[in-house]
Amino acid sequence: LTLKEDAINLHRMVRGKIEIQSRITLDNTVEEKSTLGLIYTPGVAYIAREISKNKELVYDYTSKWNNVAIICDGTRVLGLGNIGPESALPVMEGKSVLFKVLGGINAFPLCISARDKEEIISFVKAIEPVFGAVNIEDIESPKVLDIIERLKNELSIPVFHDDQHGTAVITFSALINALRLLDRKLMEIKIVISGAGSAGYGIYRILYEAGCRDIIVTDSKGAIYEGRNESLDNSYKKEIAKKTNSKKLCGTLTDVIREADVFIGVSGKADLLNDKMVKSMNPDAVVFALSNPDPEMLPANALNAGARIVATGRSDFPNQVNNALVFPSILRALLDLRAKTIQEDMLVAVAKAIAALVTDAHLKEDYIIPKINDPRILPIVNQTLKEALQRQACISQH
Amino acid sequence: LTLKEDAINLHRMVRGKIEIQSRITLDNTVEEKSTLGLIYTPGVAYIAREISKNKELVYDYTSKWNNVAIICDGTRVLGLGNIGPESALPVMEGKSVLFKVLGGINAFPLCISARDKEEIISFVKAIEPVFGAVNIEDIESPKVLDIIERLKNELSIPVFHDDQHGTAVITFSALINALRLLDRKLMEIKIVISGAGSAGYGIYRILYEAGCRDIIVTDSKGAIYEGRNESLDNSYKKEIAKKTNSKKLCGTLTDVIREADVFIGVSGKADLLNDKMVKSMNPDAVVFALSNPDPEMLPANALNAGARIVATGRSDFPNQVNNALVFPSILRALLDLRAKTIQEDMLVAVAKAIAALVTDAHLKEDYIIPKINDPRILPIVNQTLKEALQRQACISQH
Repeated sequence: LTLKEDAINLHRMVRGKIEIQSRITLDNTVEEKSTLGLIYTPGVAYIAREISKNKELVYDYTSKWNNVAIICDGTRVLGLGNIGPESALPVMEGKSVLFKVLGGINAFPLCISARDKEEIISFVKAIEPVFGAVNIEDIESPKVLDIIERLKNELSIPVFHDDQHGTAVITFSALINALRLLDRKLMEIKIVISGAGSAGYGIYRILYEAGCRDIIVTDSKGAIYEGRNESLDNSYKKEIAKKTNSKKLCGTLTDVIREADVFIGVSGKADLLNDKMVKSMNPDAVVFALSNPDPEMLPANALNAGARIVATGRSDFPNQVNNALVFPSILRALLDLRAKTIQEDMLVAVAKAIAALVTDAHLKEDYIIPKINDPRILPIVNQTLKEALQRQACISQH
Repeated sequence: LTLKEDAINLHRMVRGKIEIQSRITLDNTVEEKSTLGLIYTPGVAYIAREISKNKELVYDYTSKWNNVAIICDGTRVLGLGNIGPESALPVMEGKSVLFKVLGGINAFPLCISARDKEEIISFVKAIEPVFGAVNIEDIESPKVLDIIERLKNELSIPVFHDDQHGTAVITFSALINALRLLDRKLMEIKIVISGAGSAGYGIYRILYEAGCRDIIVTDSKGAIYEGRNESLDNSYKKEIAKKTNSKKLCGTLTDVIREADVFIGVSGKADLLNDKMVKSMNPDAVVFALSNPDPEMLPANALNAGARIVATGRSDFPNQVNNALVFPSILRALLDLRAKTIQEDMLVAVAKAIAALVTDAHLKEDYIIPKINDPRILPIVNQTLKEALQRQACISQH
């Protein structure tokens, strides 16, 4: 059987990868204090009244503390593009499985037919009472970046944008270890990022925050630089143009990848990279071909062409740089710590902490990042975000 | 311990009466066909692609077939009024427990901060991709009746309005058996309904559909009749005025309950009914004091005052006339039958089928309705709705 047939058989068999479970066993009594009378009318009226007097009690008496909404409008699902909310649902159910198995979180997939920016913002604001955090997923860029900015300001629960924040953390984490293996410094290398959507924007941001300055981001029109003739059609690309590529290198990816030390592909384009391009990179080249399901270059080909360290987003190759490694633990921590928001420095700290889980003894070309189900991830991310929030609280008190 | 203390202890202990469960066990392999590779990237991409080619497959490959959205804006929670969406959440979680335990349904409580009619309609339309049906709950009337009308026309999944439809079915069901016990006919009795919100409207509709003609509905301004001086402030009250109270009786509940055979209270007002009012009814009076958590009159008092058959909405008294007896099975059937909508005649048929579950041998004053967890309810409701849908299909083909 092919992978496709296996996947179809499994999905047809389970007919839904998640379900809602009752945590209550109903008894058969009809006394006033039967379980039914406590969880439903008349007993639940007391709980409703208590919460109406003190809204914070919703965290103590309901599942809100552990609920995450996965929001997707189906406009940019995996590398498949705008295939609609129904098609996004199996992907988001898979995400919900990972949230539960890896983070113990109740994540409900809300794949919505709303497409308009303001409509999506209103939608997410409307569900705030039920959820402890929001995870935005697979919505087209730059619309989604505007949505995130707005929601960050207008919600009092944290808004995690997995395509941006999750990808940035895990990519930076893998890069830290690749450079550690090569004994090189972030400040002295040249990095080319292919793709200026949510992932490319998030990766540039975290690298910049961490001190990296020689970054070139390319989009479908080639290298981004300030003053490029081809329009920088949104404020995020304008920001990239301002903060990266200070030499204003122009041209295609083939042009700018020359003498780069690191390639990071989040382009959504299979086979974007060829032998010649990898050979034109500096020695000990690092190639992260992260597009899913089809990477920019298959690992064997990249290694053959001379790359020293190669990673993809897939579970069937070594070095899986996939946000599944971070989103369950980050959301777990945000919920547990009742965080209100996520800052760039928090993401940098988490990336460093995860990288440090790979000890010198284990670090090698095909093991630069822990496995998705590494049990050390959850506690270290929790500890790291706790410290970051304490630092923020300290700073804001002074 | 009091009921309140017991309820608070239980809710504090479970911290959420429902949770999301994975139906998938992840293995630890990193092969291409690992479970992770099938349910998430890369395998899930095939499922997403298949659905994008044929949207109906979302019913086969995801949980949509078994998902119900419970929608509540917190404006009319139980008998507690406008206490907000956070306060509604424990009630809706309780509802979700009943959906699961009694109907095997995944019902997610979406208690939303949106209050505006158009906003709520847009919200529900946005979630259509994920859910097989919608249950509208505890939204203030008449806004909610407008919302239901619009959604019925604008959605292609069924919209159940528990306060209206559920209450109507179970009330009519109990009334059928009360009249059976008294050997009386629906056409020859006088019924007074106190409350002209969702429940009162739904009950008048089902009784009218079933052939009952001597109905008087009262609201806070007294009996409703065509041409009443005090305004009939919405189209639903105008409809009630047109179809009921043909003698145009006016006055308070005290005035119009005189010589009534049946009182149905869905007023939300505790102790609305007194001894004198019950005594003024015809012999063998039927008193359904259905408001929750506090009925219009306690059963012992109603019986003392001369009522022959008494019911409330509560589980701690005999004859629990509560929509919990019908909403799990009706939604189960609507999902299984992939119904697109709910018609009045379907509700009448279900009420009759449930009433018939109480055999002559068991029928008595304090047992006119099956228990909430009667295992015969699910199959009989399914069968009844299946036949109703077949009749509709027949009619629409001719």
